[in-house]
Amino acid sequence: MSINLTILGCHSATPRVNAHPTSQFLDINNRTFLIDCGEGTQVQLRKYKLRFSKIQCIFISHLHGDHYYGLIGLISTFMLHKRSQELHIYGPKGLKEVITLQLKLSKTWINFGLFFHELTSKSSEIIYEDDKVEVHTIPLKHRVYTNGFLFKEKEGDRKLNMAKIIKYDEIERCDYRNLQLGKDFKNSDGSLVNNQILTFAPNPAKSYAFCSDTMYTESIVPIIKNCDLLYHETTFLKDKNTLAKTTMHSTALQAGSIAKAANVKKLIIGHFSSRYTNLNDFKQEAQEVFENTELASAGKEFVV
Amino acid sequence: MSINLTILGCHSATPRVNAHPTSQFLDINNRTFLIDCGEGTQVQLRKYKLRFSKIQCIFISHLHGDHYYGLIGLISTFMLHKRSQELHIYGPKGLKEVITLQLKLSKTWINFGLFFHELTSKSSEIIYEDDKVEVHTIPLKHRVYTNGFLFKEKEGDRKLNMAKIIKYDEIERCDYRNLQLGKDFKNSDGSLVNNQILTFAPNPAKSYAFCSDTMYTESIVPIIKNCDLLYHETTFLKDKNTLAKTTMHSTALQAGSIAKAANVKKLIIGHFSSRYTNLNDFKQEAQEVFENTELASAGKEFVV
Repeated sequence: MSINLTILGCHSATPRVNAHPTSQFLDINNRTFLIDCGEGTQVQLRKYKLRFSKIQCIFISHLHGDHYYGLIGLISTFMLHKRSQELHIYGPKGLKEVITLQLKLSKTWINFGLFFHELTSKSSEIIYEDDKVEVHTIPLKHRVYTNGFLFKEKEGDRKLNMAKIIKYDEIERCDYRNLQLGKDFKNSDGSLVNNQILTFAPNPAKSYAFCSDTMYTESIVPIIKNCDLLYHETTFLKDKNTLAKTTMHSTALQAGSIAKAANVKKLIIGHFSSRYTNLNDFKQEAQEVFENTELASAGKEFVV
Repeated sequence: MSINLTILGCHSATPRVNAHPTSQFLDINNRTFLIDCGEGTQVQLRKYKLRFSKIQCIFISHLHGDHYYGLIGLISTFMLHKRSQELHIYGPKGLKEVITLQLKLSKTWINFGLFFHELTSKSSEIIYEDDKVEVHTIPLKHRVYTNGFLFKEKEGDRKLNMAKIIKYDEIERCDYRNLQLGKDFKNSDGSLVNNQILTFAPNPAKSYAFCSDTMYTESIVPIIKNCDLLYHETTFLKDKNTLAKTTMHSTALQAGSIAKAANVKKLIIGHFSSRYTNLNDFKQEAQEVFENTELASAGKEFVV
């Protein structure tokens, strides 16, 4: 069980030579996801040699260009690469229309299953679930309908305590699976051995919360509470507090405050405005309230 | 009078780390145009420090992604940069719908005049004309409706032959403009001095023809006849002649043949398929029939 996050772009607004718009490549419990897909994302995926053909689901936070203008190009590339695996796209209503219109205009027939899951709910909901991972929306407050996403591992199997198990002659190899699933062991005389004697707790399930774009809103705190890793946008420093409010973005101080209130283990900040040249100012400001803060940068990897 | 062309991208299909899709920045007689706009074009414009705020018109050949997926991002950037100058976009029907849909979804209000000129004609037509430049479509043969574009300077003023003019006492400075416009000079006794005695012919009007994507078609030859500079796609080498035909692209040999038949002064080739690693093979093949051939490459400038 592990979470492996690679930042592909972490700058706001317009793509520049060394400043790429939002996108992240996430490997969680052997599921491969892409979060947001600004213009140029497919080149960033190639640059960092990420196996992007493995992407199973793409999660789009909102329909501002710096978060999704690279999506149609990536889908076209999948098509040219003769992808056969299904691709599931989660994002705001409208995304399907804009992608299918462009495919229609180019007379492109997609040769793999392309499924859109359009989001409209204003409350947090589970939008993806399998036996190992679940994904919840985090309703954010921005100028258009926007969601963050909480990626949670599911708790794995309990781990066998072999030192104890071998003391019970009646327990055979074929019983191990039931023990891993948490069941007590039943002796031939009908008496029970409590599962917790025979097993250790599973590895703790990890979680990652992605929150961009959003103004400061404490409403997200209960959803992301205690998560291991939080990415929170910080477009501005606190000197631009009013501008942050008007444009519905956050300051570094606000991102730090959210991380603290939610008791997360680590905070990553990004979505920096191009007006700032020294990004360390963002880190320092967030650290005024939350020490374990790191700056996002293209190619940087975070492992939980 | 001059033509200054900068290649921004000249590779086919999917953008890669050092292979950018089609786009060209054209300065012709002080008019600034962009031709095609694949994903990442705005970053290329920045990389080569081209003053892209000056772009007056954008010409889109066809609606395959490698020729226009960067357009919506460029328009968004113009908006963020608070552009006020009008922008005119010439391209196939459908382009307006896809761009305006994306602007609507992002709740973006464009703060400058954005005009779409949608093309549907299958014959060559003049689509842009001012006092110095005209632009004609070049109907191409591809899998979707596609045009190339012929950019032609208009013939400038005749040039004053001062050595001759000073011999005529009656010609004053206020008469020069009429001489430049080709008018004969009328002496006070009513007799005429032929304009050609008093002036030299204007500098020759230059022309540039952009032809991508297209299969080999001699139908374009009369339109691009004798032009100074021709960009013709060559996606494949002649070893892939059948594939070129199926996908409605050209080989280097075919591009050379068109250049020769049209008697152009120089040929630039591009739109290379990613299957080829040695691009010089394209040059050599085209040169079998047309010697003055150059390879396009990102950042390369051609001056006429």
